[in-house]
Amino acid sequence: MPTEIAVIPGDGIGREVTPAAVSVLKATGPEFEFVDGKAGDRVATETGAALPSETYDLAAEADATLFGAAGETAADVILPLREAVGSFVNVRPARAYPGVDSVRPETDLVFLRENTEGVYSGHESRLSGDLSTLTRVVTTSASERLAEFACEYVDEGEYEGFHVAHKANVMRETDGRFRDAVIGVADDRGVDCEEVLMDAFATRVCLEPDEFAVVVCPNLAGDVLSDLAAGLVGGLGMLPSANVGPDRALFEPVHGSAPDIAGEGVANPAAAIFSAAMLLEYLGHDEEGGAVREAMKTVLSEGPRTPDLGGDASTDDVTEAVVSRLD
Amino acid sequence: MPTEIAVIPGDGIGREVTPAAVSVLKATGPEFEFVDGKAGDRVATETGAALPSETYDLAAEADATLFGAAGETAADVILPLREAVGSFVNVRPARAYPGVDSVRPETDLVFLRENTEGVYSGHESRLSGDLSTLTRVVTTSASERLAEFACEYVDEGEYEGFHVAHKANVMRETDGRFRDAVIGVADDRGVDCEEVLMDAFATRVCLEPDEFAVVVCPNLAGDVLSDLAAGLVGGLGMLPSANVGPDRALFEPVHGSAPDIAGEGVANPAAAIFSAAMLLEYLGHDEEGGAVREAMKTVLSEGPRTPDLGGDASTDDVTEAVVSRLD
Ligand SMILES: CC(C)[C@H](C(=O)O)[C@@H](O)C(=O)O
Ligand SMILES: CC(C)[C@H](C(=O)O)[C@@H](O)C(=O)O
Repeated sequence: MPTEIAVIPGDGIGREVTPAAVSVLKATGPEFEFVDGKAGDRVATETGAALPSETYDLAAEADATLFGAAGETAADVILPLREAVGSFVNVRPARAYPGVDSVRPETDLVFLRENTEGVYSGHESRLSGDLSTLTRVVTTSASERLAEFACEYVDEGEYEGFHVAHKANVMRETDGRFRDAVIGVADDRGVDCEEVLMDAFATRVCLEPDEFAVVVCPNLAGDVLSDLAAGLVGGLGMLPSANVGPDRALFEPVHGSAPDIAGEGVANPAAAIFSAAMLLEYLGHDEEGGAVREAMKTVLSEGPRTPDLGGDASTDDVTEAVVSRLD
Repeated sequence: MPTEIAVIPGDGIGREVTPAAVSVLKATGPEFEFVDGKAGDRVATETGAALPSETYDLAAEADATLFGAAGETAADVILPLREAVGSFVNVRPARAYPGVDSVRPETDLVFLRENTEGVYSGHESRLSGDLSTLTRVVTTSASERLAEFACEYVDEGEYEGFHVAHKANVMRETDGRFRDAVIGVADDRGVDCEEVLMDAFATRVCLEPDEFAVVVCPNLAGDVLSDLAAGLVGGLGMLPSANVGPDRALFEPVHGSAPDIAGEGVANPAAAIFSAAMLLEYLGHDEEGGAVREAMKTVLSEGPRTPDLGGDASTDDVTEAVVSRLD
């Protein structure tokens, strides 16, 4: 049985960069069966559901999923999709590349973002006309599972250790639990783990990005701090991500649907193609994943480049250039 | 009756930069009575309380308070002190200055951070051995009060409008309430208000800091995003802040107690001195406040400079240089 890849382009430039990533995957050798799924604003308008149950089931059963982007309905699509694949960690590399203008060219970070709880728990209440609450949830079990993943990630990548970012000086019980659980696992595994307050991290990463490498964070902290790192490396256009669960995973560019340039065929496919590289590695095709990453890096540095990077190439031009380097 | 200023140096370099700010205030003309208060790690070790009730009362009754920094006990000191002055907004300017190395020299931002609720509500529970929760609180009344302040700030500063940063796509009920309340007030007052997701802001402020000027945020978002802006302008050493309440206010550098350099007499007093300028303006001494700010800016650009800015001057050298420019 060939490996099944769910392909969910979504809205806007998701419909341009996802096919680009699929073309690249097809050029790599391993036999995949691609199955398309619908999600996003368009299908919400047609059917009333931004994430039809067929699409949820598709992601829940495929070996891996490639997602593009969604527009207004983004949260209604991506949060359930992360759940569909049972994802407990969102892996977000933020690297500066030669040939891409960046505020901090020495940035080379990977965020390991908790992907199930924190303020994303979904428990909100309107208690009165004046007052609403949100229940932020932190469990030791989810924090430990993330920390186990981080320790393996550090071992495999031969990193020296990792940082854990948190705000336990204010969220003493919840982020305190998170921090203690993560440090506890790291200690047991003999992995070096240094804590840093998330606000202090935001300052320090701008000043000395090379002081950090792997950063473990609660859900919202990981969202904001990885987007900050995206700013340091030149924007969201280059950031891939993997939502990893115990048995399957979903890969997506960190960028959104970019309605301002959608339909013009000039979206930068780098983030989607780097996401495809992560997908290949996740499925054990390390050599092919590495080849895709190297090909994409070479194209970033030598061109052709899309307009966001100062070039005038189309999405197809870039994709073909990447594919031609894989042969 | 002279205006009473509570002076709470706290720990570490708070004990060096706060006297510097007081020297500058004394050189400006208005008659102030300075009353000292204790807080921080040292007094916690001596008395068991990081914020003795006398100090709380002092801040609650003084016309204005100048605070330095606290060490390990920072949250136990600064959160109650903000409450003591009834502060509902934390005003945090983040500006790049000529003469100071900065990642983004065009940065000129002011964060208006909600200062009473959000995840700072203090409601946390340990529900089981595995699970803890935090109740995040958002009220329309606090959000509107902040927005009223923002509208006045924009009018007085002749800004074009302000941004409101939030994460209402995930925290729909709580940040949705915050966003709607803020936009509602801005609409009523005819002030231009544009919303931005806090993660998108983190990316965009690195890429195009001059797209933003005044940024209104929930409590934790304001904490993290203003520290991010500190990174863009060269670190926390330059950032002053004002915790403003209806009848009184507390002024503090955004930096911490910096135990690594405390006691050496080389702490950068710029953030404390800029905080003193904000204090003067708050008390209606606009001309004196402006003069202090200009003097500090000139010294930043012409020297003497402390070691964090590449110089070899002491805190006293810098303070004397500022004072000499006030005559
Ligand atoms: C769309 C939104 C729900 C999502 C998130 O907050 O996780 C996005 O910002 C992201 O980071 O993938
Ligand atoms: C010390 C801490 C409680 C405080 C905060 O989170 O508000 C600090 O980070 C700040 O920004 O003044």
